[in-house]
Amino acid sequence: MDIGIIGSGVVGQTLGAALAGKGHAVVVGTRDAGKLKEWAEKTGGRARVGSFADAASHGEIVINATSGRGSLEALQMAGADRLKDKVLIDISNPLDFSKGFPPSLFISNTESLGEKIQAAFPASRVVKTLNTVSAVVMADPGKVGGGEHDLFVCGNDAAAKSRVTGLLKSWFGWKHVVDLGDITTARGTEMYLPLWVRLYGKLNIPAFNIHVVT
Amino acid sequence: MDIGIIGSGVVGQTLGAALAGKGHAVVVGTRDAGKLKEWAEKTGGRARVGSFADAASHGEIVINATSGRGSLEALQMAGADRLKDKVLIDISNPLDFSKGFPPSLFISNTESLGEKIQAAFPASRVVKTLNTVSAVVMADPGKVGGGEHDLFVCGNDAAAKSRVTGLLKSWFGWKHVVDLGDITTARGTEMYLPLWVRLYGKLNIPAFNIHVVT
Repeated sequence: MDIGIIGSGVVGQTLGAALAGKGHAVVVGTRDAGKLKEWAEKTGGRARVGSFADAASHGEIVINATSGRGSLEALQMAGADRLKDKVLIDISNPLDFSKGFPPSLFISNTESLGEKIQAAFPASRVVKTLNTVSAVVMADPGKVGGGEHDLFVCGNDAAAKSRVTGLLKSWFGWKHVVDLGDITTARGTEMYLPLWVRLYGKLNIPAFNIHVVT
Repeated sequence: MDIGIIGSGVVGQTLGAALAGKGHAVVVGTRDAGKLKEWAEKTGGRARVGSFADAASHGEIVINATSGRGSLEALQMAGADRLKDKVLIDISNPLDFSKGFPPSLFISNTESLGEKIQAAFPASRVVKTLNTVSAVVMADPGKVGGGEHDLFVCGNDAAAKSRVTGLLKSWFGWKHVVDLGDITTARGTEMYLPLWVRLYGKLNIPAFNIHVVT
């Protein structure tokens, strides 16, 4: 499958390498293609590096892996036309590190970054997911507790959420994906981050997640 | 043990009955003692109903089980002097139902209700806990997933947190209690509520919790 990834930080690199490793044709979009030269070589040429627009044009599915502060600008640079009608997997979190660690959120409570992105790109089918775990867990959930833990999807388009749920299972082996509802439910998963960062501070490892138990 | 409970809603009644059932001497403080007559009779007289001040005076340990909107006022009515030097277990959440369900939070992000309560009652030893689960799970964690799920404690007083952790285990059978750090970590557990309410909307049962998996 042709997959575009907007953003070349740890999340973009980890997912890009994992998807290229599965045989997908990946273009990672970045502001500074030079910094990813070594990374692209390691994928054996299956992943290319380009601009945000290149990644958006290339992808049948596009993944927003930018940091929250830069997400809307990066997606504008990618271009609404190139993202039109596409499933846009949004992993960003509105983390504000301006006062150090732990971060607060620069959007929360009565809005979410997922909603802002859906509103700014109304012709795209935004599915918020993967934002509640670290990059290593996103790409390899089996590393944590035998995969017995939960991921959430939020979005207005039921077919898009269903497709993404299937992709999360086939791409990375996610076993438990909970559809929380429309894109406003992204408030719930983004506001979980202040608990996540404190669990991270406590556990001192990024490889953890929560399992919903009944 | 002599336990005072400030607040007579579902949480106060559930915990009060459970603790009285274990043989503790419980006073539930309420604005309207009349409404709890039937409830108190069911405890076989082991739980009494009184004013907020009665509950605070009575308790060696005091539990704030009021709804978040009324917590500070109820604790002021209970009286700082009566709460002095005591462990104050804070279960409240800053839920704002003014726009219906799901609620938003009226304090969040760079502050928490737990911090506000600790600041307003500096001579009390506030331990924020139990606020991430429904009343039925608070009092009987074994009902959910064989008790294999997590509760959090947040507070500035290490000895108070340690004591409360022991009480949660002996009172209700909690197996996993994670000390997240000082009272500012209450931001994390209170901001988890927007995810909790959406999980509740999805699962349609209050008897669930999250287990931290590594």
